[in-house]
Amino acid sequence: MGLKIGAIASGGGSNLQSILEACKDGRIDGEVLVVLSDNPQAYALERAKKAGVPTAVVELNRDGSREDHDIKVVAALKEYGVDTVVLAGYMLMVTKVLLDAFPDRVINIHPALLPSFPGLHVQQAAIDYGAKFSGCTVHFVDEDMDSGPIIIQAVVPILDDDTAETLGGRILKEEHRIYPQALQYLAEGRLKIVGRRVLLDPASPGSGTLHNPSVSF
Amino acid sequence: MGLKIGAIASGGGSNLQSILEACKDGRIDGEVLVVLSDNPQAYALERAKKAGVPTAVVELNRDGSREDHDIKVVAALKEYGVDTVVLAGYMLMVTKVLLDAFPDRVINIHPALLPSFPGLHVQQAAIDYGAKFSGCTVHFVDEDMDSGPIIIQAVVPILDDDTAETLGGRILKEEHRIYPQALQYLAEGRLKIVGRRVLLDPASPGSGTLHNPSVSF
Repeated sequence: MGLKIGAIASGGGSNLQSILEACKDGRIDGEVLVVLSDNPQAYALERAKKAGVPTAVVELNRDGSREDHDIKVVAALKEYGVDTVVLAGYMLMVTKVLLDAFPDRVINIHPALLPSFPGLHVQQAAIDYGAKFSGCTVHFVDEDMDSGPIIIQAVVPILDDDTAETLGGRILKEEHRIYPQALQYLAEGRLKIVGRRVLLDPASPGSGTLHNPSVSF
Repeated sequence: MGLKIGAIASGGGSNLQSILEACKDGRIDGEVLVVLSDNPQAYALERAKKAGVPTAVVELNRDGSREDHDIKVVAALKEYGVDTVVLAGYMLMVTKVLLDAFPDRVINIHPALLPSFPGLHVQQAAIDYGAKFSGCTVHFVDEDMDSGPIIIQAVVPILDDDTAETLGGRILKEEHRIYPQALQYLAEGRLKIVGRRVLLDPASPGSGTLHNPSVSF
């Protein structure tokens, strides 16, 4: 068995869905062992149940610290034998507690071409800035927001008549493609972190590499 | 006659060369009327002479203000009847004096995908950050650095074995393509600035637009 994935989501979890499907059809050598949420109403939990995956809810205790919260999250994930934590629309910042429990094994996706447009509402931010391209970024998580070493990025154009919704939809399509791809690279042991860079060990000649896909708009 | 271009360069001016050639072969409806430099040794001045274009040198007076400098620059450009100012590797920040003399007619190119990696040494910065894509940006100039409304961007991949030189070469190839294209859009009167956005008036159906050139690496 490959990756033992624990997925954490606060909301709808469409990226979770793409990962569940990729595990099922073999594009990811791994299995989602538990889906955890801070939000008992998260649709991601429904997706898990439909796929026959156990769920766990760890609600935020406003009197406790974020570290206290992550101690419970780690305990829940460990209970299921998780070795890889996949954030799929998780709205809480993770702490050192979670990161130390799964070193270089906490992954996130962000709907922009980092370092451009970290944070929230980034589709509208990219449009308002007047950028001609945006995209998405799968990255290892560190203690800062949207800042860890980048595994894969994908690029999409921003069109003159885009809204946050149309751009977001175009980006989401790429998210559903690159998140499973990044996890498969991890499953294959092909990712090497050097400083801030993530280098990809070649699998077989010519695979997975797009040379000079230069585009402009 | 189309654009009456004054180009300003501090160094080699390879973008100047691409613009001179594009004017000559009709890809830009316009003419470079003068090449100005703050550096009497700039190779850009040689390129101008070889192309039969007049040159002007306005050296920085360290006792004077940047505004005083730009008063002289504007005078030199106006003397040649310039209506469009094209920065091509100009190492000085321009002031309101120049911008007010040529409103919405001062253009620059930057070798990164803004807002990522403004400033200097940006090819190395993109590599060190671990970004999977970089590119270049043609933009209107405002009073801040690398911050004005964006006309065109182009994207290139960053490869695992890239150096600042190899990445810089890949980006430069795109610069030589999009800078003339942006100037031609300007010559055709197709650029509309709305807030920070630059919208492109369609010329003829299907021209100049790459739909969904999604790429990843």
